Amino acid sequence: MGEIGERALIELMLANITPMPGMPVPFWDDVTAISLGDGRAAVINTDMLVWETDVPRGMTALQVARKAVVMNFSDLAAKGVQPRAFLASLGLPRTLGATVVEQMARGFEAGAREHGAYVLGGDTNEASEIIINGIALGVADEERLMKRSGARPGDILATTGPFGDTAAAFKILLEGYGAPEALQGPLLESVYHPRARIEEGLALAASGAVSASIDSSDGLAMSLHDLSRSSGLGFRLTRLPTSPLAEAFAELSRLSPGDLALYGGEEYELVFTVKPDKLDAAREALRSTGCSLIELGEATQSRGLVLVEDGDERQIERRGWEHFRSEG
Amino acid sequence: MGEIGERALIELMLANITPMPGMPVPFWDDVTAISLGDGRAAVINTDMLVWETDVPRGMTALQVARKAVVMNFSDLAAKGVQPRAFLASLGLPRTLGATVVEQMARGFEAGAREHGAYVLGGDTNEASEIIINGIALGVADEERLMKRSGARPGDILATTGPFGDTAAAFKILLEGYGAPEALQGPLLESVYHPRARIEEGLALAASGAVSASIDSSDGLAMSLHDLSRSSGLGFRLTRLPTSPLAEAFAELSRLSPGDLALYGGEEYELVFTVKPDKLDAAREALRSTGCSLIELGEATQSRGLVLVEDGDERQIERRGWEHFRSEG
Repeated sequence: MGEIGERALIELMLANITPMPGMPVPFWDDVTAISLGDGRAAVINTDMLVWETDVPRGMTALQVARKAVVMNFSDLAAKGVQPRAFLASLGLPRTLGATVVEQMARGFEAGAREHGAYVLGGDTNEASEIIINGIALGVADEERLMKRSGARPGDILATTGPFGDTAAAFKILLEGYGAPEALQGPLLESVYHPRARIEEGLALAASGAVSASIDSSDGLAMSLHDLSRSSGLGFRLTRLPTSPLAEAFAELSRLSPGDLALYGGEEYELVFTVKPDKLDAAREALRSTGCSLIELGEATQSRGLVLVEDGDERQIERRGWEHFRSEG
Repeated sequence: MGEIGERALIELMLANITPMPGMPVPFWDDVTAISLGDGRAAVINTDMLVWETDVPRGMTALQVARKAVVMNFSDLAAKGVQPRAFLASLGLPRTLGATVVEQMARGFEAGAREHGAYVLGGDTNEASEIIINGIALGVADEERLMKRSGARPGDILATTGPFGDTAAAFKILLEGYGAPEALQGPLLESVYHPRARIEEGLALAASGAVSASIDSSDGLAMSLHDLSRSSGLGFRLTRLPTSPLAEAFAELSRLSPGDLALYGGEEYELVFTVKPDKLDAAREALRSTGCSLIELGEATQSRGLVLVEDGDERQIERRGWEHFRSEG
């Protein structure tokens, strides 16, 4: 948030509010929730998409609206919660045509139905730019919620991975990089048509193997830092989950494939820790959804985030893709 | 919504989405809800407040934030649902100072705690203007939900009432009208510091006397039209619930007190219908909260909205206060 910083802003807000007793999920997690008093929680997430700062060129209104669903559902997925409903609160310029609104409705519908949920409505308001405030709602067993805060030293760090496609796509969309069509097409698709890992999150939650989990929408490095902070420990990575496409793009463009994997964003994978004796259970749970568990390293008592490559150690920085927002 | 119209926009959206099976509340009601499968529903409402178009001069950030809570909670109140949580999704200009954000946090806290709920969090985003997207969440028995659609001809139309203060305040704030301080103070207070009728809504729902209910945030006339449309009938009013302050302001300013009562907005009263044999129960329920039930007239088979005054009949128009938005 520009000059103050988003974290400082949220800290400022939390300092002024009374926490609800018995919150099923603490502040600073991917979602918020209220207890239903019978072992279940109503789980809710909200994310605002501001067209001018969040939408790269080439995206259709349908794609943008669908992505607003995905970004909201992904946070529920990371907690192991099936989204039931999506609501959209829209800010729309007075001059906007009906066609755009219809395309947005289709995008909400597509995003919701693909992920097993329904659009429940919302409201429209006049604003000077297009704003999509999405809301995802689901219900889940409180005990099963995979929080950010449960990792223990020695736990295995893993992801549904791969990473790097969106960072490569941003290089193309925002920094003038080029790539052969066979590469560019699927890279841009990662930005235009992401999916949320709902089934994977549900399977992991059902396995009981996961000690902590986060969605990776702020990029792998940021997600690792947030997971580390919430769980009060560090991570030692011995592998990066770089996608083959990002590897190929990095080679052609003389970029670091590892940096593409670490410092991206808008990737809706799950990053999680597994109790060491439950690794097989987690792997099997993911396999049942057609996804491979990618081991990255392990949780450490010491707080740092270290990447070990060819015997060298380097720190993983706390930053994501500095796109649109930094130009505003 | 400017050129298309909000209703047309929402119709366009609904034409493109699949309704969730078993929705506890139909589309076009004050809130949306999902069934919890045990007779209860999770009830949710979202409203976006756009500072530039929705905030009159003289309001502090604390008041604006508090009002964002009230406007979201009022819709739950009209359904007889206790709000449990408030979430805020904020769009903030990069240049905004920390003080404003802190004041907003205090406003959310005040609004939530006054009405028996907690602030659960939210998120912040960069936007070109200040946007507060509020979300209210509650849980209630499905059977008890007071929908817009249940009124029957012969039912008694009533309100928690009085109306007209905000319309008078808008005349002062936006059209240069004046009033003695003893009058102006409380009139402006109706805009700056509204309350949601939570206890009243809960008491009415518990009484089982109400056949249909709506929150009056779009003004009395608009609310009556919406209630009439959802229930498929008309209303014949023999009385307007004009507030004494609005009466006094109207007399001083040579305005119609009835027009102030009908064509206002941002008044968070409940407008509802009561089965004729349950009127005493409804009256008693409201009295237990310190509120008087104001009878307005009755529901009619014929669709029109008619006001009978001194033997003359006139139509109640479908319009609210045409402030800010029409100037954009």
